[in-house]
Formats: sequence, structure tokens, C-alpha cells
Amino acid sequence: MASPFLVLDWGTTNLRAWVVGEDGRVGGREEFPMGIGRLAAGEAARLFEEKVRPRMGAEALPALACGMIGSNLGWGTPVPYLDCPAGMTQLHDSLCTVSDGGAPVRIVPGLHCERPDGGPDVMRGEETHIFGWAAGDPARLQGEHLICLPGTHAKWVRLVDGRVEQFVTYMTGELFDVLRRHSVLRGTDTPDNDDAFDEGCEAAGDGGALASRLFTARSRVAAGQMPADRASSYLSGLLIGAEIASAPTLLGVAPETPVAIVGDPRLGQRYVRSMTRRGWTATAHDGDEAVLAGLVALANGGLA
Amino acid sequence: MASPFLVLDWGTTNLRAWVVGEDGRVGGREEFPMGIGRLAAGEAARLFEEKVRPRMGAEALPALACGMIGSNLGWGTPVPYLDCPAGMTQLHDSLCTVSDGGAPVRIVPGLHCERPDGGPDVMRGEETHIFGWAAGDPARLQGEHLICLPGTHAKWVRLVDGRVEQFVTYMTGELFDVLRRHSVLRGTDTPDNDDAFDEGCEAAGDGGALASRLFTARSRVAAGQMPADRASSYLSGLLIGAEIASAPTLLGVAPETPVAIVGDPRLGQRYVRSMTRRGWTATAHDGDEAVLAGLVALANGGLA
Repeated sequence: MASPFLVLDWGTTNLRAWVVGEDGRVGGREEFPMGIGRLAAGEAARLFEEKVRPRMGAEALPALACGMIGSNLGWGTPVPYLDCPAGMTQLHDSLCTVSDGGAPVRIVPGLHCERPDGGPDVMRGEETHIFGWAAGDPARLQGEHLICLPGTHAKWVRLVDGRVEQFVTYMTGELFDVLRRHSVLRGTDTPDNDDAFDEGCEAAGDGGALASRLFTARSRVAAGQMPADRASSYLSGLLIGAEIASAPTLLGVAPETPVAIVGDPRLGQRYVRSMTRRGWTATAHDGDEAVLAGLVALANGGLA
Repeated sequence: MASPFLVLDWGTTNLRAWVVGEDGRVGGREEFPMGIGRLAAGEAARLFEEKVRPRMGAEALPALACGMIGSNLGWGTPVPYLDCPAGMTQLHDSLCTVSDGGAPVRIVPGLHCERPDGGPDVMRGEETHIFGWAAGDPARLQGEHLICLPGTHAKWVRLVDGRVEQFVTYMTGELFDVLRRHSVLRGTDTPDNDDAFDEGCEAAGDGGALASRLFTARSRVAAGQMPADRASSYLSGLLIGAEIASAPTLLGVAPETPVAIVGDPRLGQRYVRSMTRRGWTATAHDGDEAVLAGLVALANGGLA
């Protein structure tokens, strides 16, 4: 679609919207507490027309959305997953029109793959981050890259010649959250402690026996070997360390493969720190910029 | 101490008490909702005298307790851990007298060890189960045995010639609980499904990349490959399978070592089923009988 248009990253918790002007420049950006986890069934389309379009001054603009809005709990009819391997062209060709009134609304499909260890894996929204990141430099569309999108459900992705070949999800962020809130490892949030984080990474070993290693966040305190206010950083290091130790192996990626961490810059720096300690060459990239670039590229017809 | 006496398994949630009569026979058994997790600081000793002793008709009897009552949140002064390797004799010699009024109260110390993968591990209460189980047959006090005590914080223990050499804790039960209650894997309890449990065990592979494999309990449903009402049994199989796949290796136990599962009989059968499928020779033993036997043996002065 030609600009101007409206693009949306519509996840479980929030909806972020940008208007892209006639000149291709990004105009307004707004965030709405309207993630699909907060909406009643069937409410998304109505709220979009009543709240989002007017606030963005985008009543008549074509819109493109990525994220959990494409799930069965989102707009209405679920948008089918696109099977891997898949590149930007396939993704663009699979955009799903969910409202074709005067101002059409399209949704980016998620991706589905068979995991290297068997069974399916899925993503919704991260595909747009990935291709947005890749669109930032022609070199990223050639050869093999390992991409990590850290967060609640972290994704590790093998991108080969611009196509997503395979990926695996890690529940790292969610495990940290539920363990700190609801388990014997619960406790108040404490300032990040780099030493304790590094100790946790170290204690993760090869990433195996995680359900056992987690208990050391408790036993080190009980045995008087770690102050209680370091347990949070240690646990974070343990979970991220176990992820980094196992994900590249699970995906069969060679140690010389360049690694891109795409997401929250602060969290990205923790991943870079841990990967560097394990001998990888990793760089951090802003996730907001990536998803916007991906949405704009898809709205403009895919990568050139 | 000579019988009669009062013995207690005093954990985080409940307190179970038995009176052992002059003839050595077990008389009354009662359960109290007085686990230390439910008590205010300093309340344990008073409630024991006011509620437990009168109800058991044991006002004047010497008492012996094991479990979390020995922790810093228990009776008052924490009972120090006994270092491994440790046998029944060392445990008996380390009983801690916490009240020496007319009717003394003693507490069994927990155990501490250095884990094979570094860092400490600890237990409180399970040591009494272990030695109680071992007391049931002279053959268990000779050679090497692998003992698993499944539950919230499952313990895997290497017992050699009647001494606990080393052990590791797995947060299997607690992970299942917090994930089913508070994460994207949450859902209502569904009847146990053996096929889904076996599928989960299989999907656990070598026990590595657990934070990633957990997500398959979600992605299999999202991809239409598993009905939602099987996710609970599948998740249980995944967690128990990952534990069984890694614990013996972590402890350096040879495949021909006999395995005893000591705990809740129903859960024990699931572990036996999974271990048998992986080629181990495992038998299930009742945990209640084991802890009572351990308490009685300790009260009587250790094993003969």
C-alpha cells in the first residue's frame, strides 16, 4: 500500500501504533493499554475503530498490524501461521485482510516451524522484528545469522539468506517472573548485581538439569553462601545462561555465526555480555526500531 | 529415648504426629494444619505445647521432630545442617535439643552437600525418609542405591553403604504448580492422561533446554497438534521426564544401580513408569511409612 498508512504492533499487553506519512516519514507514535489479553472476545475491531483510529488521526488510512492480534483471541478469525522456511516475500504475500471497508486492515501472519528436537514451534510478531532488523543492512540478507529476541517468550532464530529456517522459543522471561512472584524463589525486586548475574550464568553450566540448578538460587542463600538480595540477579543469570548455553546447539548453529540480539536495549546488553563470555560475537539492536522497520517494509510491499 | 514417645514430621504446610507406645507399637496419628509456612515467628513452640501435646495425649512424652521445623523459620534457633557424607549414626549424634523441660523436644538436622555441578544443596526432612526406607531391609544399607523423593522439591540421593554421599534437588513439583497457575501454560486441572504424560516424557529428550521444551506444551495446542485438555498431563511428563533424564547423570550413577522412589504412591507410580521406559529398575515405596520408620529408628538410638 502507498503511504500514508497506519502500522501497529498489537501484542498481549499493549498496542503500539505509528502513522507513516506521505513522504515515508514516521509521524505520530502512541501506545494504548489495549493488548488482546485485556480485551473481551470480539472487542478488538470495535475499539480499533473507536479509539485507535481517531487518536492517531488515521480514520481513512489503510492499516497493517503484527502480533498476537492475529491469534484466535485477537481480531476474530485467526490468521493462519506461515510455514518455515519463509522470507519477507512469502510473508508479504500472506498478509491477511481482516477488514476491507473504506480503510482496509491487514494482519501479518505468524510463523510455524518443526523444532529440531521434534514438535511445533510458533511465533506471532517476532517475524516482523526479524525482517525489520534484516532490512537494515543488505549483509543481513546473506549467509547465516543467529537472532535472539529476548523477553517473556524469547525466540532464537536461524536466518539463512534472508529466510527464517527454524526457531525455538524459551520461556525465560515468564519463568523468571512466575518464580520471583509465586515460588520459594520469590522476593522483592533488588537492584541488578552484575557479579551475581555472572555467577548465575556460570552456574547454568551446559544448560542441562535446569529444574535442579534453579534450586541453587535458594540453597546458596540457605547455606549462607549468597546474600538474599543477590538471588534475583543470580536467578536471571541462571535462566539466561541456560538459554545461551543450549539454544545455538539446539538449532545446530556453528560458533562462528554472528549473533544479533534484537529487543529491549537493557536486556540486550545482558545477553551480549553473557554470549561474549561464552565466546560468541554478539551485537544488540533496538527492538522498537526493528518492528517499525518490518511493518513499514511489509506495508511498502516487502523488501526491495 | 525409650518408648513411649511422640514423633513429628513438621513441614511447611502440615504437621503429622504419631505416638509410639511402650510396646513399640504406633498408636495415635494426627495431622495438624500447622506447617511452619502458616505460623507467625516464634509461635511453633507455644502451639506445640498448647495444641499438639494435649490432642495426642502426650503432655509428658519426649518428642522428636524432622522437617522444616529445623529451619530459621521454625522452632526458633535454626538447627545446623549436617554435612554429607552422613549416615544414620551421625544423624542421631547430631539431634538438636530445643526444649529440655520435663518433656524434651529434639529436632533432626537437615543435610548439606556440595553438588556435583558446584554450589550447595540442602534438605530438611527427606533425610529421615531416606534412613527410614533404608531401615526396612538390611540389603539397602549395602552397596549403592539411587533414591528419589518426588514432590514440590524432589530430591535425588546417592546412598552408598548406608551413607548419603550426595544429592540434588529438582523444583519439579513447584514448577508444575506455578506454571499451571500463573503462566501461559495455565489451565484447569484435567484428568491424568497416560498417553499425554508419556508424550511429555518423550519430548523431554536428554533433559536439556527445558525452558524451551516447556513451550511445546503451548505450541502443540496452538498448532492444533494436541487437545488443550491434555496439556496438563503432557507438562507433567515433560518435567518428570527431564528430571529422570538428567538426575542420575548429574549424580554420576551407573545405569544398573537400583532405584527406589519414596513418596506419595500415586506419584511414585508415574516415576516408576518413566524410569522403566528409560531402562532403569525402579520400585515405589510409601513415603509416610518411610518417615515414620526413620523417626522411630532415630528415637530408638539409630539403626541397630
